[in-house]
Amino acid sequence: MSRTDKLKIIPLGGLETIGMNMTAFEYGRSIVVVDCGIAFPEDDMLGIDLVIPDVTYLKDNIERVRAFVITHGHEDHIGALPYVLGEVNVPVYATPLTMALIEHKLEERGMLDSTTRWVVRHGETISLGEFKIEMIKTNHSIQDASALAIYSPAGTVVHTGDFKVDYTPVYGDSIDLQRFAEIGRQGVLALMSDSTNAEEEGFTMSERTVGQTLGGIFSEYKDSRLIVATFASNVDRVQQIINTAHQFGRRVLVQGRSMINAISIASEMGYIRIPYDTLISENELDKYPEEQTVIITTGSQGENMAGLSRMAGGTHKYIHIKPTDTVVLSSNPIPGNEQAVSHIINAVSARGANIIFQDVHVSGHARQEELKLIYTLVNPLYAIPVHGEYRHLRANAALAAQLGIPKDHIILLHSGDVLEIDKKGAECTDHVQAGPVFVDGTLIGDIGREVMRDRKRLAQDGVLIAIMPYDLKERRWFGDVQVRSRGFALVDESDALIEQARALVLRTLEKKIADGQYDGEKINASVRNALASFMVTQTGRKPLVLPIIVNPVEES
Amino acid sequence: MSRTDKLKIIPLGGLETIGMNMTAFEYGRSIVVVDCGIAFPEDDMLGIDLVIPDVTYLKDNIERVRAFVITHGHEDHIGALPYVLGEVNVPVYATPLTMALIEHKLEERGMLDSTTRWVVRHGETISLGEFKIEMIKTNHSIQDASALAIYSPAGTVVHTGDFKVDYTPVYGDSIDLQRFAEIGRQGVLALMSDSTNAEEEGFTMSERTVGQTLGGIFSEYKDSRLIVATFASNVDRVQQIINTAHQFGRRVLVQGRSMINAISIASEMGYIRIPYDTLISENELDKYPEEQTVIITTGSQGENMAGLSRMAGGTHKYIHIKPTDTVVLSSNPIPGNEQAVSHIINAVSARGANIIFQDVHVSGHARQEELKLIYTLVNPLYAIPVHGEYRHLRANAALAAQLGIPKDHIILLHSGDVLEIDKKGAECTDHVQAGPVFVDGTLIGDIGREVMRDRKRLAQDGVLIAIMPYDLKERRWFGDVQVRSRGFALVDESDALIEQARALVLRTLEKKIADGQYDGEKINASVRNALASFMVTQTGRKPLVLPIIVNPVEES
Repeated sequence: MSRTDKLKIIPLGGLETIGMNMTAFEYGRSIVVVDCGIAFPEDDMLGIDLVIPDVTYLKDNIERVRAFVITHGHEDHIGALPYVLGEVNVPVYATPLTMALIEHKLEERGMLDSTTRWVVRHGETISLGEFKIEMIKTNHSIQDASALAIYSPAGTVVHTGDFKVDYTPVYGDSIDLQRFAEIGRQGVLALMSDSTNAEEEGFTMSERTVGQTLGGIFSEYKDSRLIVATFASNVDRVQQIINTAHQFGRRVLVQGRSMINAISIASEMGYIRIPYDTLISENELDKYPEEQTVIITTGSQGENMAGLSRMAGGTHKYIHIKPTDTVVLSSNPIPGNEQAVSHIINAVSARGANIIFQDVHVSGHARQEELKLIYTLVNPLYAIPVHGEYRHLRANAALAAQLGIPKDHIILLHSGDVLEIDKKGAECTDHVQAGPVFVDGTLIGDIGREVMRDRKRLAQDGVLIAIMPYDLKERRWFGDVQVRSRGFALVDESDALIEQARALVLRTLEKKIADGQYDGEKINASVRNALASFMVTQTGRKPLVLPIIVNPVEES
Repeated sequence: MSRTDKLKIIPLGGLETIGMNMTAFEYGRSIVVVDCGIAFPEDDMLGIDLVIPDVTYLKDNIERVRAFVITHGHEDHIGALPYVLGEVNVPVYATPLTMALIEHKLEERGMLDSTTRWVVRHGETISLGEFKIEMIKTNHSIQDASALAIYSPAGTVVHTGDFKVDYTPVYGDSIDLQRFAEIGRQGVLALMSDSTNAEEEGFTMSERTVGQTLGGIFSEYKDSRLIVATFASNVDRVQQIINTAHQFGRRVLVQGRSMINAISIASEMGYIRIPYDTLISENELDKYPEEQTVIITTGSQGENMAGLSRMAGGTHKYIHIKPTDTVVLSSNPIPGNEQAVSHIINAVSARGANIIFQDVHVSGHARQEELKLIYTLVNPLYAIPVHGEYRHLRANAALAAQLGIPKDHIILLHSGDVLEIDKKGAECTDHVQAGPVFVDGTLIGDIGREVMRDRKRLAQDGVLIAIMPYDLKERRWFGDVQVRSRGFALVDESDALIEQARALVLRTLEKKIADGQYDGEKINASVRNALASFMVTQTGRKPLVLPIIVNPVEES
């Protein structure tokens, strides 16, 4: 390969939705993949547990794939590794906490031994074929988040990962703005930056401000047991709740499997500091007066099975919300979860407890002024907004334009686009297979559009089944016709409507036979049409109609 | 009945959710019902079109029900009339625009002649048995909204309906605060006030401020075709869009059946004024330069079938959104619609058009300062928050407490509660049947919890059907066993898994027969269990399993 090759940037996810982040960088004989995340299913993806990116392109080019480099330890960046590493088994590079979270995942699936793992620290640079990649410290809602400087012979790309600028972080240092500046000074081909909050004006507040809010709540509700719900992955938030509890002389009980995992991993590695004698176990809870305790739990998004829902619904093992409790949701609803969050607020209210759910949260993503700061420090030739829905990418693009980047140097990509880029130009030259792969139980990717369409139909109007024991050879019924339904409006199978439907099935089949039509598929189609139009006329509904001809046992 | 009787207040909807408003007031031989609304189904009410209140109590007491008195013309206050009037056929009282909207509904169903209707104007009082009811002008996001003063021998109840305080309304007068004050001065037993925005601090802005925002948008995007989406029912908003268009010399095309209906009803009655030569028809659209046109459309909530979605999706008859368009969402997402609204923003963005969706809307509901104003003017003995989820009712209750109403005079009701109240006290003495009735196509109320549970299961994992042509008398198979699935992960019916399932069905049935079990229901139960546990082991999924024994034709 000559030095005049262009760099290829191939997003395999993360651009149509928030989640499922994965981008391939390709130069000559080397492919490096940044992030490997899941997305949570949208409302219309019925029955789907989660969504992972289609990695066909990586499998087809497996001999050139050098590594996954992971920017931070959130599910939308690491969650697909257990599914993808089986097929694309290359080394994984990540910062210490990120790697610990990945290892926890891999261990659960017995994949630890089969995965090569390299821990990289901020400021270090790794060599991966024709690429060198430097990890740059940023701030986010989890520790050890990194931006990446991706050095290739065609130029340097800076990828921010998920970030915010926090001048007063709860733990550790502020984002390494000086390094962004130095790299910018050396010349940067393209900046790929986090678009999540690109529609929001101003500057995201420091995580530390939430600590002040918590202090206010603890001092106002000093006679009340406190139950604080937040994201298990937000280690800094948990640290602040623990600090505030300690300061007000309260003991802390941690609830929820994912919360306990996150805290124990972070605390083993020193990313969270728990004052001596602060944490208590469930057996000790009764030993302390209620107003001297805090319960930290999951379920701030209203998730049905999480700690807070169970406490509010009376199904928790030993914690039940009472009128004397104060519940704090230290989070904002993630888009799509608004109704679930409202349900939990109502459920807690109905128990008579106080609930505080506004302004006890700050985002982990940069707003417009932070994005402008990074554009200005990095001063890239091209802007490639990433991490967001189309609306967010466009808002990020508008900022780049405001800062003087020419329109034809601002590039909005779709998953699967192959962008060829160097200092002389950038264009999409190809499109590779990409898109969501559905994970449903243990089945990966077997869930096609057809199944999803059926599920939607079933969800709306249920199913109507016509069973026709008819001998097509002998032209006779050899068993009883049955019409059955589930999820349709009619529960009672003896309903007059079902009787009429049964007669209709009989008549329709016999009419086809009389017309000389003996093809089972065609008879099925006629029965399906007849039943569907009967039901829509009678009930206004369109159940999924499934006609089944039963064949007689072959005489031997 | 003696004068010492208490007043009964029986909410039949509107307290667990926003929507489905209906409250019965009962004194002696008279029952008056305030409002008769629908609710839109929640996410988990699969396949349901809409939800109406259970009116069993009214049917059981039909001889005492005097009237429906309607506060304003929104669906959550009038939408259930066509369903309920068939069973509870009593006169309907409403202000002029409200009545026109009701009549439009009744006419569509051929119910106009069978319904007695009385138009009442603000300031008028109607006599209904032992009640007198006065209509008091308020402000809301539709004209002719009323609060009610409900006079009974046990005392006066003021019911605000949905309201806000708009000192500078777009059309007509401000809310009749003086009348609230006068009635308050005479002594009010209870205030039932709108809790929708009781969590929000401050004062809802005047509808007129939206006109100023629109003016800014029209002057900034003067080279662009403008497409403005809003609620069809928000007549004042439509008026302001038309005014702004006229001011900027643009022609207006109205799109969407509900939008056209609302505008023509409102304009016939003089509630909206359309300057001469402003409205154009679809045939005329091409005659004007794009930047001299405005399209007003439905679909601001991202509704799939509404105008805006079709324009963005390329399925509209003759309007397709282009990069030169500016689209304005003059609405906020209603809770539960956030994802749909985000989809429409992405779809419009993806067409390259500009989209403006923030701050081009004000609410039609009072915030905390307005609620406090009404409490203070009315000065009630009791506060009964209405119109909201539990969280909103509680927020409203907290305001009442702040204003000095004693805790035991602040009453949070549930649907079906029978509150008996007079100056000496208030208590819930009974509970009547109440709750949501599902409307699904033409079927009303036939959709039980069981059907809903099946639909959820079907939506998640589809259906697996085992067909067993087995003669239980003769103990022999007389047809082929089939296992079929829909909406399950497996599309291919010849799949090895289905083959194994088929063998399992055969084996399970034959085992039961060998054990001397000839009861069809019990055999079905065994097959269901065997298949369910096989599938959960193999796939991690739990489809709805439906075993069906086919009976042979009886020999005659």
